[in-house]
Amino acid sequence: MSAPHPPCVILNEPQLAENIGAAARVMANFGLSDLRLVRPRDGWPQERAWASASGADWPLNDAKLFDRMEDAIADLQLVYASTARPRETQLPVLTPREAAAELSRAVVGGLATGLMFGGERAGLETADIALSHGIVTVPVDARFRSLNLAQAVAVCAYEWRLTVLDRPREAFAHNIDEPAPGEMLVGLYEHFERELDAAGFFHPPEKRPSMIRNLRVALGRARMTEQEVRTFRGVVTALSKGRGRVLAKLAAKKAETGDR
Amino acid sequence: MSAPHPPCVILNEPQLAENIGAAARVMANFGLSDLRLVRPRDGWPQERAWASASGADWPLNDAKLFDRMEDAIADLQLVYASTARPRETQLPVLTPREAAAELSRAVVGGLATGLMFGGERAGLETADIALSHGIVTVPVDARFRSLNLAQAVAVCAYEWRLTVLDRPREAFAHNIDEPAPGEMLVGLYEHFERELDAAGFFHPPEKRPSMIRNLRVALGRARMTEQEVRTFRGVVTALSKGRGRVLAKLAAKKAETGDR
Repeated sequence: MSAPHPPCVILNEPQLAENIGAAARVMANFGLSDLRLVRPRDGWPQERAWASASGADWPLNDAKLFDRMEDAIADLQLVYASTARPRETQLPVLTPREAAAELSRAVVGGLATGLMFGGERAGLETADIALSHGIVTVPVDARFRSLNLAQAVAVCAYEWRLTVLDRPREAFAHNIDEPAPGEMLVGLYEHFERELDAAGFFHPPEKRPSMIRNLRVALGRARMTEQEVRTFRGVVTALSKGRGRVLAKLAAKKAETGDR
Repeated sequence: MSAPHPPCVILNEPQLAENIGAAARVMANFGLSDLRLVRPRDGWPQERAWASASGADWPLNDAKLFDRMEDAIADLQLVYASTARPRETQLPVLTPREAAAELSRAVVGGLATGLMFGGERAGLETADIALSHGIVTVPVDARFRSLNLAQAVAVCAYEWRLTVLDRPREAFAHNIDEPAPGEMLVGLYEHFERELDAAGFFHPPEKRPSMIRNLRVALGRARMTEQEVRTFRGVVTALSKGRGRVLAKLAAKKAETGDR
């Protein structure tokens, strides 16, 4: 009985070293490392796999090579086979999400698990699928089913990763700083409105209340931080005073020199 | 208003034609077709993109080419930016699943939407991210964050596809007030910035880009409607010109009458 560890990825007769490397890379992205290769077309190892792994070397360095799928899955207790078109079979067909949930439960229970993928051209043979406990089908659009091998690994590994995180919402909770208190917002609103009053913005006057409401609603939705409120007060000051001062100076100069 | 259609995929400065093709392929797998390219490094079109798309030619055939991200998002009303490491920003950070749910609601509501991805090496610049309404982060393992461009597209497109398959459950979509398209927002931003430049707001000058980014992010979070954008353009005009005119008149008067 192996110690609990993430599912292995088994590539059956992969053709392109680039795809093996790309699969290794995305495995590393999503926390998988146990890579098994069954009869890779061009032999093993192949330098191009490392090149396309972009530094995710460890799944490649430790990749195990097999002549037969039977040997590749020998130690596994739960294996799903990924195929685009579920063939005539009595195996359950799962979505990647359902398969990840099952794998997660199995791994937590100490089982050795794996995901089996077919080669680029032919996919998995029914004989290989028959060695699995269920079929995983990535829900591709019927108009274009041909999913790249590494992309199929990506989707399954991504779903696995989500089960590990388990609480994706919390792990990726908003990183937004605390919104400013209402007091500060009102200070900003009133500053804005004072300057807009001075600029004669609110016309006709009877529309002033609803115009103010609309401005406040739009600004309020931004949920500004305290820093942002300070910045926008600076903006209001700059626009209303800065430009005003420049024009005032110009006008004063013109008047003084008699320019018109 | 555009008819409901799936989000577009915007690739910013993609380097490898193979990755553009791989992105197109996985877009087709998951029912996306509107591909936009901003300054692809090696120009466009490139034959190798079609080769690596494995028959998913239509996103490539119809791909639109842009010089600036501002133009690529001009017609979009909701845009998320995919980045591996959420930088210091005040934008919300979503998982691919959360982003897909938001995009789905928006699309059902008739909005034009998009997903923005950075180039292979550098990812997205903060200035581009500032044009989005939120960040999508694929939950990669901290030990190996470097996610292939097409894999990032794959995960986001896969989650989008799941929302489409789930659509019947969404009979109760929110009544979303239509956010203004990116073009109008950029117009507002640039108007704001022009006036702030004139008012000498951006100092020291080396801080200008980050100050602009922060202003855009805060305003972008408000998700203004077209009407609101028009109102705020009026606000900017009023503050910068109106007050200026008033002060200028006053100053001119004072100068004429000899008052000090």
